[in-house]
Amino acid sequence: MTNRVAIIGVGQSSFGIRPDSSIRDLTFEAFHDAIEDTKNLDRNDIDASLIATAAGYDKQRSPAAVIAEYLELNPQPTFLTEAACASSTVALRTAWSFVKSGLHDVVAVIGYQKMTDMTSDAIQEVMGRAGDVMFESSFGTSMPAYYAMFARAHMNAYGTTEEDLAKVAVKNHYYSQYNPKAMFQKEFTLEKVLSTRVIASPLKSLDCCANADGASCVIVANETKAKKFAEQPVWIKGLGLGSTAMSLASRNPPFTGFESANEAARQAYAMAKIQPTDIDVAEVHDCFTIAELISYGDLGFCKREDSPKMIREEETHLGGRIPVNIDGGLLSKGHPVGATGGSQIRTLVHQLRGEGGKVQVDGAKIALGHNVGGIGMYTNVTILEA
Amino acid sequence: MTNRVAIIGVGQSSFGIRPDSSIRDLTFEAFHDAIEDTKNLDRNDIDASLIATAAGYDKQRSPAAVIAEYLELNPQPTFLTEAACASSTVALRTAWSFVKSGLHDVVAVIGYQKMTDMTSDAIQEVMGRAGDVMFESSFGTSMPAYYAMFARAHMNAYGTTEEDLAKVAVKNHYYSQYNPKAMFQKEFTLEKVLSTRVIASPLKSLDCCANADGASCVIVANETKAKKFAEQPVWIKGLGLGSTAMSLASRNPPFTGFESANEAARQAYAMAKIQPTDIDVAEVHDCFTIAELISYGDLGFCKREDSPKMIREEETHLGGRIPVNIDGGLLSKGHPVGATGGSQIRTLVHQLRGEGGKVQVDGAKIALGHNVGGIGMYTNVTILEA
Repeated sequence: MTNRVAIIGVGQSSFGIRPDSSIRDLTFEAFHDAIEDTKNLDRNDIDASLIATAAGYDKQRSPAAVIAEYLELNPQPTFLTEAACASSTVALRTAWSFVKSGLHDVVAVIGYQKMTDMTSDAIQEVMGRAGDVMFESSFGTSMPAYYAMFARAHMNAYGTTEEDLAKVAVKNHYYSQYNPKAMFQKEFTLEKVLSTRVIASPLKSLDCCANADGASCVIVANETKAKKFAEQPVWIKGLGLGSTAMSLASRNPPFTGFESANEAARQAYAMAKIQPTDIDVAEVHDCFTIAELISYGDLGFCKREDSPKMIREEETHLGGRIPVNIDGGLLSKGHPVGATGGSQIRTLVHQLRGEGGKVQVDGAKIALGHNVGGIGMYTNVTILEA
Repeated sequence: MTNRVAIIGVGQSSFGIRPDSSIRDLTFEAFHDAIEDTKNLDRNDIDASLIATAAGYDKQRSPAAVIAEYLELNPQPTFLTEAACASSTVALRTAWSFVKSGLHDVVAVIGYQKMTDMTSDAIQEVMGRAGDVMFESSFGTSMPAYYAMFARAHMNAYGTTEEDLAKVAVKNHYYSQYNPKAMFQKEFTLEKVLSTRVIASPLKSLDCCANADGASCVIVANETKAKKFAEQPVWIKGLGLGSTAMSLASRNPPFTGFESANEAARQAYAMAKIQPTDIDVAEVHDCFTIAELISYGDLGFCKREDSPKMIREEETHLGGRIPVNIDGGLLSKGHPVGATGGSQIRTLVHQLRGEGGKVQVDGAKIALGHNVGGIGMYTNVTILEA
């Protein structure tokens, strides 16, 4: 008995602007989708739930209790995990350890965010407060401003162009056409992306992911339960979680990568005993186009300076060396903060089960998910195996 | 190798109204205290940190990154766990599983809350939103109001009197005289407690714990590291976490106990393979005097109807059958939400190491901590052994 931990079911709600759906509705939709994805799992087979969300977008405090009540997951253990935009993959890490340690057999990870009840300006203010309030965000550094600084540094260091950034958006929007749960599901030309209004130079509107409402669910189990409740269990092979200083003032130049992501990747590759070249398909945290280019270097897909070349030469397109974000990514799916990591895992699980449809990567056996919190103060990397 | 998990260091800040201390200052104070409590542990020996707090009391979002940066715990894993007032013991549960599963060797759990920058009214509003916002707290159910309803139900069912409630406050305040980190450190007579102003009848001012600023830290390790970094490791023997519906409308009468606590106690006793009668000393979640009486029944210290008799006959006083809250409890230490569970664990660890001073329970070998979130929608029970 190796006591491996498997993913036995994945689900998500549609992502988008959903004025009529409460946090109860969204999480129910994702949970029900994941239950349907298993082989006859009943909610009573679930030993614990973990709820992932980032606080500040709605009035309900301690929402794990509301969600667990609505999904009828009482009196089993439940609580909330949070690491900004990486909240649902730190929940997955926690679920893995609950199963691996023998504390639980089956754990449901439910991530959600309800963002669009607020105005765009209010969302920007709330989101900015996931930057350092004492030293930075109070002085105007919104998330687009933070990432714009990284984009400028990248352009300065490696000759990255605005066209390179735009190509990331073009690629991800293109693939979202085949994802019926994505927000956009629509192609955009390079010219269109480049001509959208400037949000924080050099980032334009389509360089930024959209605020959205949505939920995701990932159900994990030990080996015995996985064989009972899944036709094709997908195994968690590597886990990595790194952190770095929240304030940019405490970090070191050249601001073209995230130490947290480097560290998370190092841990995950070591645990999985693989190299970056072994990855068949990846989901990376493209909250902004620049974030995807940064991830190529942080994850060791290429040397940092070669990341613009990777997008230019279509190495991360379907058919390329490592297809990335072939579900649309955050840029085109929308980014309901607490739901995003789980949605990435869902896509990767579909790929490893050969259920990718028009965006299936031939023979995908090993997949990587990369989920960043805030301005890179956390990164969670998950490696999955068919 | 049994792979037991130990507590190797505990610490806390002073609890109270601390206008000059930021969340950085408070957590540093607790962390430093816990490091000093170990045998030569260096911060570089810490493989991961878990931050516990309840959102809504300050502007900083995703505070785990701020704390980890200030305590120089980057680039190791860090994230936040939350279960309202039980936030720091669900972090301890998570830390246990990280160590037990082999993912980490040494994990620091840091809980904090900075409450007193807000007005009392604002705190009550924020705290109420840890009740169901859609169906209950928007209509005026503050935390004192919730617990007052439980107190009335208890009085109705078991003949509990206002004097019985007051006796809990008298006991806990009495013992706080010997806790230099408690907020009050001051004795109150039964007459005094009964004469304080009514907050939500039958609960008076001294039936309620005080809002406070503070932090706690608990450092856990595997058996090998525990022997290296602790003179006297204290072992985690049982863990339980239960949940119940957030809204009272979804629960069943007679409202004299919490299903979450029953369930948590059941799990923890089963894991530890002990009975309630084996407990030598306990810390229970006395956010209100009624909450301590409810806990006696929920934890199986007595039959529910006998809980008033337990306080009348001083069975939970020092020298009684199961001494409870001999550090002052939440009622007299103050209740900085995210720090409270860790502070309870600190007291129990001191007891099991024989360091209880004037409130040492002779020959204490097995201890129980009971930490409730909100109006009982979560309860975490931890059983420790010398």
